[in-house]
Parts: sequence; C-alpha cells; structure tokens
Amino acid sequence: MANVAVFGLGAMGYGIAQSILRAQHHVWGVDLDVSAVDRFQSAGGVTSDLEPGSLDAAVIVVLNADQTEDVLFGATGIALLMKPGAVVLGCATVPPDFARDMAARCKANQIHYLDAPISGGAAKAAAGQLSVMASGTGEAFEAARPILDAMADTVFELGDDAGAGSAMKAVNQMLAGIHIAAMAEAMTFGMTQGIAPADFLRVISKCAGTSWMLENRAPHIVDGDYTPHSSVTIWPKDLGIVRDIAQSAGFDAPITDTALAQYEKAIAMGLGAEDDAAIAKVYAAQAGLTLPRAKN
Amino acid sequence: MANVAVFGLGAMGYGIAQSILRAQHHVWGVDLDVSAVDRFQSAGGVTSDLEPGSLDAAVIVVLNADQTEDVLFGATGIALLMKPGAVVLGCATVPPDFARDMAARCKANQIHYLDAPISGGAAKAAAGQLSVMASGTGEAFEAARPILDAMADTVFELGDDAGAGSAMKAVNQMLAGIHIAAMAEAMTFGMTQGIAPADFLRVISKCAGTSWMLENRAPHIVDGDYTPHSSVTIWPKDLGIVRDIAQSAGFDAPITDTALAQYEKAIAMGLGAEDDAAIAKVYAAQAGLTLPRAKN
Repeated sequence: MANVAVFGLGAMGYGIAQSILRAQHHVWGVDLDVSAVDRFQSAGGVTSDLEPGSLDAAVIVVLNADQTEDVLFGATGIALLMKPGAVVLGCATVPPDFARDMAARCKANQIHYLDAPISGGAAKAAAGQLSVMASGTGEAFEAARPILDAMADTVFELGDDAGAGSAMKAVNQMLAGIHIAAMAEAMTFGMTQGIAPADFLRVISKCAGTSWMLENRAPHIVDGDYTPHSSVTIWPKDLGIVRDIAQSAGFDAPITDTALAQYEKAIAMGLGAEDDAAIAKVYAAQAGLTLPRAKN
Repeated sequence: MANVAVFGLGAMGYGIAQSILRAQHHVWGVDLDVSAVDRFQSAGGVTSDLEPGSLDAAVIVVLNADQTEDVLFGATGIALLMKPGAVVLGCATVPPDFARDMAARCKANQIHYLDAPISGGAAKAAAGQLSVMASGTGEAFEAARPILDAMADTVFELGDDAGAGSAMKAVNQMLAGIHIAAMAEAMTFGMTQGIAPADFLRVISKCAGTSWMLENRAPHIVDGDYTPHSSVTIWPKDLGIVRDIAQSAGFDAPITDTALAQYEKAIAMGLGAEDDAAIAKVYAAQAGLTLPRAKN
C-alpha cells in the first residue's frame, strides 16, 4: 500500500483518486474546492495532513502547466513532501518542453517524473480505465506502475524522454479538437440541405466520414444537451498549446488554426462553460439554423 | 434476371458490375477504356450490343455530374435504351440539385431515378458490400432493389427527395476529406516532436483522436505506399462540390475551405494522381520533414 496524493479533484482527478483508492492505497485528495475534498474523504480518502517525506506518489491532474509547476514547486510545493525515489505523474496537457523541465527539476530533488497525460473522459477515469501516454525513465515507470495499474487499462510506453508523452497528447488533442469542430461544421451544413441531425448521426457514424469524436459528441447536439462533460474552454487551451509548439517548430498547421478560431468564436459567444459540442452553435448562428432543443 | 448496364468500369464501377453479375443478372459493362470492357466481358459480362428498350436498370458510376448527364442524355444517351419503368442508379458524387434535375428529366422519359451515391472503397465494391445513401420515390426503390441487394450490404433510405442521398454523400465527403488532411497535419506535426509515423498510428488509432480515415490512410504514409486506392484529385472535386453547395446556402465552412486549400497545394505539387494520403507531402515539404519511404 502506497501513500498517494491526487492533486486536482475535477472530473478526471476525482475518478483517478477513486480508482487508486479502490486499489487499496492510502490516498489524499487535494483541491482548492473544499467540498470536493470533503466528498473524497467521505468516500475513503485519508483525512490526516500530509507529512514531509511521506508520499510515494503524486498524481497531478490540474488544468495546465502553470498549475502543475505550482503544485510541485510553488510556495506550498509538494516536492519536499515526497520520499526520495518517489514518483510524480504529470497528467495535465502541457508542452513537451515543460514536461522535460519538470523531469529535470524533480530529478534534482531525488524524485522521478513520469510524463503521463491521459485520455478517455470522466467515466473511464472513474472506472480506472484511462489511456495514458507515458514517457520517462525506467525508474519513473517502475515507481509509477502500481498507480498506472489502478488508473489505466492502456499505458502507451513512449520511451525515456519525458516530453514524448506530452507530444503524443498534443497530437491527440489536435485531432480531437479538429474532429469535434468538423463534426459540427458537417452536421450544420447537412441541416442546410434538409438532413436532420439525428439522420446525420445515424448514417455518417456508419460511413467513412466518422470519427471517435463524432460518435461521442454528435449525440449531445441531437439531444440538445450541453451539460459540460468536457467544456469548450478546454480547446483554446489545448489547441493553443499545439499552435505554440507548432510555431516553435516552424510547422504550419492551418486546419488546427481554423478549428481554434471556431472555438474562440464560441468563447466570444459566451459558450465557454458549455459542453464542447456547443461549437455547433457558432455554425448555427452564422447560418440562421435552429439546433435541436433538449426534450425536457 | 434483369438486364443491367454499368457505366464506368473504374475501381468502384468494375466491382459493382462484378457484384451484379454474381447475382445472376445480365450485365453490360460500358467504359471509354476498351480494355476494361474486354476484361469485364471475359469475366462474364454480356458481349452483344444494347438494344433500344432493353434495359431494366442502369448503374452510373462515373466521375461527376457532367459525365452522369452525358451518359443519360448526351448524344448517345441511354435514356432511350431503357424500358418504361426501368431505373437509373446515380452513384457519382453530385450536387443535390443536379440529382433532383436528373430525377425530373428521367420521370419525363418514363424511367425512375434513384439518387444513390456510394461509400466504402474498391474492395467493398468488389465484394458487393458497399453502403448506399439512397433517396427517391417508392417506385425507384422498388425497381432498384435487386441491384441494391447485389451491390450493397447497407442501404440508407433517406426519403423520397432525389437530392437527399447526394446531400448526405456531400456531408460524408466533407468529413472524410477533412479527416485525411487533419491526419496528415497531425502525423507530420508529431514528427516535428520526435513521434515516428508508426508510433502515431499505433497510439492515436486507439485514442479519442482517431477517425475512420486515419485508420485507413495513415498506414499508407507509414508504409510509404502512395498507390492510388483513391487519388488526391478526388478531393478538390468533392470538397469543391461541398463548397459550392455551402455558398449557395450562405453557409460558412472554414475547416472545409482550409482542407480544400491543402489538397489544391498537393495538386500544384504534382501529386494529383497519387493516393490521397500524399497530402502529407504538402506538410512535409513546408516543414522540411522526410516521410517514410517504401521498403521495396
């Protein structure tokens, strides 16, 4: 049984913390939202304070690189709370260079850093069935193994360079973000030609035009349900990371840029907190279309 | 046993003609390419000339609307060769308004028109397992049923408006074309971050960023094999149709426009006759990347 802290008890982090708890570890849940911490402690999380030198592993499931750095090395940074040889799993979507920097600074503190961004959504997080795009030293993988076993059913081992996991995550987010926007563009285009969203979903999901994201998000539009399983705000952040990396590499990514602009329009329309399928509202507004409304 | 002519013996049409032949119909194969006609006749196609008033069904599997119109109503148009009550299956990707026009003109000639664009690729065409996005009158569906049974394993019945099938096909092509270009953009972006194309395929095909087209076309790039199963030239045509329909509807389709521009760059680079996965070469050229080469 390891001493594990999970930082960030949002939709993904809470599920990860639950999964690690189910694997019989001692788990501290940490979040600025006190109600989330209380809820996790009621579900079996450790209630005592973290003692210096006590943590075997820290799983950081915060929003971005700044928050990740703050958890590790900020004013109340946890690097000092960890045992020598302990491991940090960095799960946020961050630039590859940032992951490499964290790995170097952790190493200077005698702890391991596994670049470990995640994919799969809240339901898979709660079930311990995430996919992890992981890279880091053999020691980092070894120390992280019990945690990976608890939270994931697929671990892609992408080598010993701490940036490789984050690079693959950036590639995945690039496609996922494009595919959601393209789905919305195609569905609303179809509406201009008399194709109802439900027919779009029924037919295209069985044809060569389908994507994982189409099958996952198009039903939200068909049902008129924009409950934020994953919100619009994710995409300017993640596609912005992709754009920044691409620019640094001198790489033109015009489709990414175009999709990003559509998400920025959604934010400007006040849709940031809605499910990312709400990007369809950008197209509907432009073309004067009426999207399906929720039945209730 | 029906008398059926298949117009256009390219990758799709030849497979459709074979499939209809397997279903024990009399099948004429028609193509400007005499060698394709000879090959089909050797495989069991009818060798005699078509007699006026003899055809029960015509399956038109040509490149575009102009060729479809020419087959039906050109100088040697077949409308006069068909029995009253016979059916035309229009399988090319065409604008919905064109399909409606063909249906009206066929009706004036006492024949039925089924708007019947297809999806699935050459292998499924040869196996009689295509998907058909079909719309037309009940009489058109009834007359076409034996042919649909022979060539398809999935027929989406999209109502009695002859344009609905073509509209759905346009939506499908829009997404398929975007997804191929997005796959190439993401794979080459990954290369700038040290991700080998084979690793991209292995990981992303199992993650939320995947698409039908990614799983189908990314292997071509990994293998360095640009044998044209479906060529680059298809996309300026099909996405051009989408753009024209969108413009007529006052619909902005910025991701489609951006993908189309990438295909046009590929054409300008002389890649038109290669497999559409060659759009990756546009990105590789811009970023100075070396794509995998064929092993042989």
